[in-house]
Amino acid sequence: MNKVKVGILGGSGYTAVELIKLLLRHPGAEIVAISSRQDEHIADLHPSLLGRLDVRCQPFEPDALKAKGVQCAFGCLPHGTSMESIPPLLERGIRVIDLSADYRLRDAAVYEQWYKETHHDVANLAKAVYGLPEVYGDSINSAKLVANPGCYPQTAILGLAPLVAKGLIEFSGIVIDSKSGVSGAGRTPKLPYHFPECNESVSAYAVGTHRHTPEIEQALSDIAGGPVSVIFTPHLMPMDRGIFSTIYATPTRPVTEAELVELYRDYFANKPFVRVRTNPPATKDTTGTNFLDVCVKAVRGKVLVLAAEDNLVRGASGVAVQNFNRMFGFEERTGLM
Amino acid sequence: MNKVKVGILGGSGYTAVELIKLLLRHPGAEIVAISSRQDEHIADLHPSLLGRLDVRCQPFEPDALKAKGVQCAFGCLPHGTSMESIPPLLERGIRVIDLSADYRLRDAAVYEQWYKETHHDVANLAKAVYGLPEVYGDSINSAKLVANPGCYPQTAILGLAPLVAKGLIEFSGIVIDSKSGVSGAGRTPKLPYHFPECNESVSAYAVGTHRHTPEIEQALSDIAGGPVSVIFTPHLMPMDRGIFSTIYATPTRPVTEAELVELYRDYFANKPFVRVRTNPPATKDTTGTNFLDVCVKAVRGKVLVLAAEDNLVRGASGVAVQNFNRMFGFEERTGLM
Amino acid sequence: MNKVKVGILGGSGYTAVELIKLLLRHPGAEIVAISSRQDEHIADLHPSLLGRLDVRCQPFEPDALKAKGVQCAFGCLPHGTSMESIPPLLERGIRVIDLSADYRLRDAAVYEQWYKETHHDVANLAKAVYGLPEVYGDSINSAKLVANPGCYPQTAILGLAPLVAKGLIEFSGIVIDSKSGVSGAGRTPKLPYHFPECNESVSAYAVGTHRHTPEIEQALSDIAGGPVSVIFTPHLMPMDRGIFSTIYATPTRPVTEAELVELYRDYFANKPFVRVRTNPPATKDTTGTNFLDVCVKAVRGKVLVLAAEDNLVRGASGVAVQNFNRMFGFEERTGLM
Amino acid sequence: MNKVKVGILGGSGYTAVELIKLLLRHPGAEIVAISSRQDEHIADLHPSLLGRLDVRCQPFEPDALKAKGVQCAFGCLPHGTSMESIPPLLERGIRVIDLSADYRLRDAAVYEQWYKETHHDVANLAKAVYGLPEVYGDSINSAKLVANPGCYPQTAILGLAPLVAKGLIEFSGIVIDSKSGVSGAGRTPKLPYHFPECNESVSAYAVGTHRHTPEIEQALSDIAGGPVSVIFTPHLMPMDRGIFSTIYATPTRPVTEAELVELYRDYFANKPFVRVRTNPPATKDTTGTNFLDVCVKAVRGKVLVLAAEDNLVRGASGVAVQNFNRMFGFEERTGLM
Repeated sequence: MNKVKVGILGGSGYTAVELIKLLLRHPGAEIVAISSRQDEHIADLHPSLLGRLDVRCQPFEPDALKAKGVQCAFGCLPHGTSMESIPPLLERGIRVIDLSADYRLRDAAVYEQWYKETHHDVANLAKAVYGLPEVYGDSINSAKLVANPGCYPQTAILGLAPLVAKGLIEFSGIVIDSKSGVSGAGRTPKLPYHFPECNESVSAYAVGTHRHTPEIEQALSDIAGGPVSVIFTPHLMPMDRGIFSTIYATPTRPVTEAELVELYRDYFANKPFVRVRTNPPATKDTTGTNFLDVCVKAVRGKVLVLAAEDNLVRGASGVAVQNFNRMFGFEERTGLM
Repeated sequence: MNKVKVGILGGSGYTAVELIKLLLRHPGAEIVAISSRQDEHIADLHPSLLGRLDVRCQPFEPDALKAKGVQCAFGCLPHGTSMESIPPLLERGIRVIDLSADYRLRDAAVYEQWYKETHHDVANLAKAVYGLPEVYGDSINSAKLVANPGCYPQTAILGLAPLVAKGLIEFSGIVIDSKSGVSGAGRTPKLPYHFPECNESVSAYAVGTHRHTPEIEQALSDIAGGPVSVIFTPHLMPMDRGIFSTIYATPTRPVTEAELVELYRDYFANKPFVRVRTNPPATKDTTGTNFLDVCVKAVRGKVLVLAAEDNLVRGASGVAVQNFNRMFGFEERTGLM
Repeated sequence: MNKVKVGILGGSGYTAVELIKLLLRHPGAEIVAISSRQDEHIADLHPSLLGRLDVRCQPFEPDALKAKGVQCAFGCLPHGTSMESIPPLLERGIRVIDLSADYRLRDAAVYEQWYKETHHDVANLAKAVYGLPEVYGDSINSAKLVANPGCYPQTAILGLAPLVAKGLIEFSGIVIDSKSGVSGAGRTPKLPYHFPECNESVSAYAVGTHRHTPEIEQALSDIAGGPVSVIFTPHLMPMDRGIFSTIYATPTRPVTEAELVELYRDYFANKPFVRVRTNPPATKDTTGTNFLDVCVKAVRGKVLVLAAEDNLVRGASGVAVQNFNRMFGFEERTGLM
Repeated sequence: MNKVKVGILGGSGYTAVELIKLLLRHPGAEIVAISSRQDEHIADLHPSLLGRLDVRCQPFEPDALKAKGVQCAFGCLPHGTSMESIPPLLERGIRVIDLSADYRLRDAAVYEQWYKETHHDVANLAKAVYGLPEVYGDSINSAKLVANPGCYPQTAILGLAPLVAKGLIEFSGIVIDSKSGVSGAGRTPKLPYHFPECNESVSAYAVGTHRHTPEIEQALSDIAGGPVSVIFTPHLMPMDRGIFSTIYATPTRPVTEAELVELYRDYFANKPFVRVRTNPPATKDTTGTNFLDVCVKAVRGKVLVLAAEDNLVRGASGVAVQNFNRMFGFEERTGLM
């Protein structure tokens, strides 16, 4: 197989190391460059990569990436930085899968409202495709720039998509109560993620203000064909990885659980990474995989959806590879099973 | 101080050992007997008690407890067993604080519906006082039988009490999304609580069917003066102890956060164990204490309440001591600060 | 590639599920049968396998395995049970990789001393090859029966092999202080592995009596060409997986750290799964991989070796696949990188 | 009871908050001042203290502490800083219990060798008493300056004291393999203690170079009446608190386990905080307490000692209160049971 030459922007974080491990198993990808401000061997940044990948990180340099033949760049940079680095790559004909938030929100004003920063690359914003394959499907295949979806949003959007597509629930007041492992907060040491602070503890954060809120609403509104609004509350769990979202919606007409399960099975029939279950999932069932498990229940007049995923795989690097597969003509599951 | 002689029914579990540690620090309590089917020294059951308490467990025998001068018995037995053991103690004039669920629900039919067992002590059910001091206050002081409240219900009831008391929220459709540490499941080894199963994982359980639902509704209905119904979803967290409840309610009229905070501060003004906070609590802030921390927020047209506690202290043995203090004339905080 | 048909004996435990995940990624293996007393779909026993493997477990039946064309059986049964199931497979020409302890000790008397059970298959004991590829190398390739090595022993044997091979340390009084995650204790719920018991705690167990002691000594004695004896102390760590062994030995002559590192690099030069490091490893560097990381230090007149691995991969199912690769002509790393 | 007025130097760390909680329960202590560079209410630094202590931290000012009547200052500052702050307090007649390492090593040259800093208060070094009550006993009672012992050293010193006192083991080559929870590393966020780095992982650190080595040797040499040398290897465990030390020594003559147990029971007969056990302890048995559990075993010609403690209580703030009790005439266990 002719391998696609791949570059990674920002090698020091958790999404980068997870992506590297996935790509090392992918039969059609070859990692030829990794950029980082830290001019170190990748195995010094991530000892788990010792003996698996012999690449030294180098400062970001678009021409150098082009010269190395990079066809696809994965952006593992923080938001804000990402939109500075990506335009020169697109100009050089390199296709980009951006794992940051910079190209997820189509409306720059919404970005600025939630991220408190001016958007510097509005031109490319319009070209970006939101990389949630189960919803945006074939539009991803030919995209030059894919905005890889956020970790929380995938559980919320896929958890609600069948209901919203059918108009079976009210489109406002949807409650999304999400629980995440600590890796979701990134690799920069800060007091809330210092082990003795967050271990053996559960807390809520960014109540009413989390930046994934507009991302969830944008996708659900696309599916609904009209505005959808949610109450989204993230919580920090004492574990490395995993997201569990418990979603509460109000049906627009009486529904049975059997009917709901049928609806979900139909909706996800040809989506190999969504597993519809009748018992509540545990995040551990999905650890290290690109699966997103969903379970729908009718409880006392409400519809409950339970959705679980691995935030670093399905929630970030795994779905990025799924998008890569679509963009470069591989079967969707390649390297991900 | 003349010490109250105390007996403990069922010494092998987590609520028992927590209670023992609290009572050892209490200046007005003396543990004179512990019953258990396991005829062992209490420090063999709980090595943490080595050198702290020299009591050998003995089979349950009401006359023996009476002969030892037991004035107050704490029931740390499973539900079902509890209602077999308590009547003979009450007959002998021993006051009882029962940590099981057997005397919490006033209506035996509701008990049977949720616990799938016939209630065998309906007579005493009527006399039992629900031991949530912040709501049932002085009626606890003279009670012969106190039904110590459940761990989850306390976060839900106290979290909602100010709103329900004022009629500020709709009384149906209240969502209570709760997260608990594993000790809440007791000390009997079972697969879901086997370390490699539940560690590094989050899951929901008993969705729509958890037995604490009617307990929450009974107390909230008492406060409301009319029926209140809730959707209660418990989740298992990979930690020893702690409960965090995130509560979503719909206000009956527009409310500001400032108004809500004021309401909560007033309601809990003289309740030393409820701490009203303006930032979200973490369960760890309450670990090992009898405090229940609450934070109320107005988010996108909903009222959110975040409530945190230690499920073994505030959620069980600590509030039992708080009830003991009321029943035997000690200041409410004695032995609990 | 012509796939080798594989059967798994005992599908309900942690080594089985880990093995299945590895084999699903292996280009040359096809799982055609899984035996278990639990007559269930494998994904009901292990929800993580949902949508990945469609096999129903069946009671162990040697003729049925033969009829399905099984060429290689992996034994994931408890010791004692294993030696009952394996002889009929060998008789039918099925090659076996046994992950239990039953065929590891060449001397049945030693087995009986440490395992407190009579060995029932002494005949095959003599034919079994101890499946530690870095030491027993090519003898594994043609073996009919491979005794897959224990989790702890691999860290001890490989950690000490270079020193013992050169006679650089005294052969008695070697201290091996090992720390293991809880999955090493298996999947059967028991009080010591109940989450609230072992979480947030460290303890030693089987002090001076652990059954891996003679296994370590047998292999080290093979390498030394004479008797080697060790003091082995296992400890339980509050984590799912990972073993870390800290080894203390007394050099027979003064040695420098540089000399030791050189010795280790030479010894493991062509062993792709042993990574010689100069900084202390963390078990997490090896999680989910077949790598065993070693670091050797000279400290105050002693030689210290630090060895880390994933007990379920390198310590059990990964090295089993490494053995499978040797036995069926695949490159040693196939399916393991 | 006339309360001793207490000041705390450095309120932001884990030993400070643990100390505060212990002192709040102590009938003879009153916290009148807390110094910190962070000019905040103590409950803002440690939300667990909300509603329990109403003190605002203030910059360190010796005269202000004197003016407030502080009789005893607990130093919870980092080493290096501590020896700058303590002399002015001693000059003002305030007795000091220093939890840092600054006054533990009698020989300034040894301090400088291991801590890589010049000692700036050699004068007071000579006056400091090493605050390990079980060994240095009554000399603590009248001390003006107590050097509170390190967390690891207490397990090593008390674990070995009976053997060393009797000359029952060789005085060189003693192996101390210690395992600690993450709180031992302090509260400053750093990558190795970032949750996703150290959770689910075990590693060794400071191999052969840890600063507690000379502290252990100094105390053991005092007990032995001659030089004792050790190999000390600390490890990081994925848990909040707890230290477990596994100690390997070579007996100078054949010993039986019964003899060893007898020796330990005698040695610790009147030391209420050391619990001699015949089964291996778990750190969890000591969590939240001032107990240090020891178990001695004879294994294959070696003597093994297993010692467990809570590093924040027994290992720091609890033993500080034990020293406080001795210095101010309270029964040794006051506030600690």
